[in-house]
Amino acid sequence: MNVEIIVIGDELLIGQVTDTNSGWIARELNHMGWEVIGITTVRDRAGEITDALDNAFGRADVVLMTGGLGPTKDDITKQTLCEYFGGKLVFDEAVYANVEAIFRRRNFTMNTPTHNQAYVPDVCTVIQNPVGTAPVMWFEKDGKVLVSMPGVPVEMKTVMKETVLDRLKIHFKDHSSILHRTCLVKDFTESRLSETLTDFELQLPPCIKLAYLPTPGVIRLRLTARGGDEGHLKLLLDEQFAKLSALLGSHLFCDVDTTLAGALGRILTGRGKTLATAESCTGGNIAHEITRVAGSSVYFKGSVVAYSNEVKQAVLNVSGETLLQCGAVSRDTVAQMVQGVQRLLSTDCAIATSGIAGPGGGTPEKPVGTVWIAARYGERTHEECFHFEGDREQVIARATQSAILMLIQLVTEEG
Amino acid sequence: MNVEIIVIGDELLIGQVTDTNSGWIARELNHMGWEVIGITTVRDRAGEITDALDNAFGRADVVLMTGGLGPTKDDITKQTLCEYFGGKLVFDEAVYANVEAIFRRRNFTMNTPTHNQAYVPDVCTVIQNPVGTAPVMWFEKDGKVLVSMPGVPVEMKTVMKETVLDRLKIHFKDHSSILHRTCLVKDFTESRLSETLTDFELQLPPCIKLAYLPTPGVIRLRLTARGGDEGHLKLLLDEQFAKLSALLGSHLFCDVDTTLAGALGRILTGRGKTLATAESCTGGNIAHEITRVAGSSVYFKGSVVAYSNEVKQAVLNVSGETLLQCGAVSRDTVAQMVQGVQRLLSTDCAIATSGIAGPGGGTPEKPVGTVWIAARYGERTHEECFHFEGDREQVIARATQSAILMLIQLVTEEG
Repeated sequence: MNVEIIVIGDELLIGQVTDTNSGWIARELNHMGWEVIGITTVRDRAGEITDALDNAFGRADVVLMTGGLGPTKDDITKQTLCEYFGGKLVFDEAVYANVEAIFRRRNFTMNTPTHNQAYVPDVCTVIQNPVGTAPVMWFEKDGKVLVSMPGVPVEMKTVMKETVLDRLKIHFKDHSSILHRTCLVKDFTESRLSETLTDFELQLPPCIKLAYLPTPGVIRLRLTARGGDEGHLKLLLDEQFAKLSALLGSHLFCDVDTTLAGALGRILTGRGKTLATAESCTGGNIAHEITRVAGSSVYFKGSVVAYSNEVKQAVLNVSGETLLQCGAVSRDTVAQMVQGVQRLLSTDCAIATSGIAGPGGGTPEKPVGTVWIAARYGERTHEECFHFEGDREQVIARATQSAILMLIQLVTEEG
Repeated sequence: MNVEIIVIGDELLIGQVTDTNSGWIARELNHMGWEVIGITTVRDRAGEITDALDNAFGRADVVLMTGGLGPTKDDITKQTLCEYFGGKLVFDEAVYANVEAIFRRRNFTMNTPTHNQAYVPDVCTVIQNPVGTAPVMWFEKDGKVLVSMPGVPVEMKTVMKETVLDRLKIHFKDHSSILHRTCLVKDFTESRLSETLTDFELQLPPCIKLAYLPTPGVIRLRLTARGGDEGHLKLLLDEQFAKLSALLGSHLFCDVDTTLAGALGRILTGRGKTLATAESCTGGNIAHEITRVAGSSVYFKGSVVAYSNEVKQAVLNVSGETLLQCGAVSRDTVAQMVQGVQRLLSTDCAIATSGIAGPGGGTPEKPVGTVWIAARYGERTHEECFHFEGDREQVIARATQSAILMLIQLVTEEG
């Protein structure tokens, strides 16, 4: 099934807000085997919204729309859709009751603009929005479907997951089963991995496809099986996944779809090991990545962000002599940091970083992008120096991913 | 000047990569007074790219395109543009020299796909890409302009800032000056602030406009002056900005355009004060926000991410009795955390957080989203309990912003 996404809002076209909704929707649809063929972002203007609608309906059977449903005057999506589909706005008791309930919960007072949220086009099916005041509207036209949803991410995600995705499958009689198995693979470039898996790909049954989703340092591999009988599909998929695992051995280090930090979490949980980080140039971003994973409190004890040398000495016990002779960005410093935090927080594993994220602070010997990283597991430490390209933000992001991957290497290499 | 952006890449339509380029471009153009009227994301397919081009040229004078310029077979933007503008691909010595130099720097070996990067349409003006192998192409047609740029953010940003923006202004003879003054305002809702500024807005000279850019807890106000004579504009703008400052008093807490963490950094730098954070539920994200700001090492000493109670006790000196009687998510715990980290890292200011980010861990008394935050400046501490809506990611993000704002309040309130 082909889908177009239309994203509405002036704030997106001046760059004030970054649209993350369309990417999320695309991932969900891709997962159920439907294809997003275009995304269009338009301003809160009736003519531009209807032009985008005409274009989208010309290419796709389903149009998913987000944004422009707030109670303020500049949001005109509801009126525009009402006219586009030839209806009129009518008061909806159920929507009003939902708005009232939400306002009561938040201790807000009802006002006229909010009251107007309860008016909906008489030519649509209303889907209740359990977490916001803007109703979700489902329109049909010549067998095609348009769903208009709020732009607030948590509201859009809630109605998509609770209602919209299921209704779309039912409406379009999509009874096909689709199953995925995703895994993370290290130590390969995309081209070398595709060489290694040539024979495996050739022997795959026609109902199973292999996709490569490369990211720096790690390749995400996804097997997708499609067909009628879910039980049979699952057997086929498990069989192929087992072959893949056998082929890749320990290079396949995580057998579910998650972030690098999520993969590390699963490895640590599986072995009952704990973790701490000592961060200089990454400034807490490794701890942030690790704690973004729900349930990370099981293995993550904490972090010391030692941004100043004073803290490296006083809290992490890095020797003043090392800092003076080798500098903060050095093998010896990260080695002492990683040991210091392991001891201080009494953990099995630790990660440490020290580098120059830029834009200032670079020297000819240690230019911006130079980052020393250490990983420690029990009594074993690995240290390595990296040179990352890009701006401050990118150096921090790349150092974070490399540090997590380094610990995964260290923990898994002993088997 | 009206601009359309076309973003190309299959990876965007399966949600594997989030497009941040178009938002960045929109901000830069908005800043120079040009308007983005639409953003279209399409797959790596010739027909879909040319349809998007026809649509975009129908609405705008300038089309900026990113992506689809890699050396692999699936990237077809260059060939598609070459045909669209009726040219043929020719070998370009200067592009080849640039690609070679980049490969030498990275110690890569030249291969055929990369060699092909040096072929460019003979109907475009090539703009050298100093940080990547894909050349930037400038096409003209009936007075309109198309610029095709790589999708790698650092490459796109570099060529935009170093060349493309200036060339666009020159090409379209845009000699107008545009000046901005941005400030951050606290303690106001958007509607109350707009009431307060009604008279101020009415007396503004016609060449100056006021824009509201609200974010949770803080409103960004921007005065934009447009006209011919830059010197005169600057005088007018300074005069109006001074009026605005006088009207808003200490509610206007930052007089440049920056993040909340950037604003805190300026305040601390101005007063010569230092900062540390003690984070439980925010898991290092406050430290990360603070260290994203270049130059933060001047005032930021570090952080203790005390994810486990053990670390709260052992490193931050939170009493075991408090943890037992009040729980980790309590006023007493954050009060002890903020004092503990201030003492440990010897700083003037500190921030502490402890809460339930979810999805697990909530109770009827302390549901998911409950976050205690403490800020400390010298001997004064402020503690407050918040209830944030949304998922784990959002609770962490909102707690981070609220914590930084709380310290700004505390540091600035004594004047």
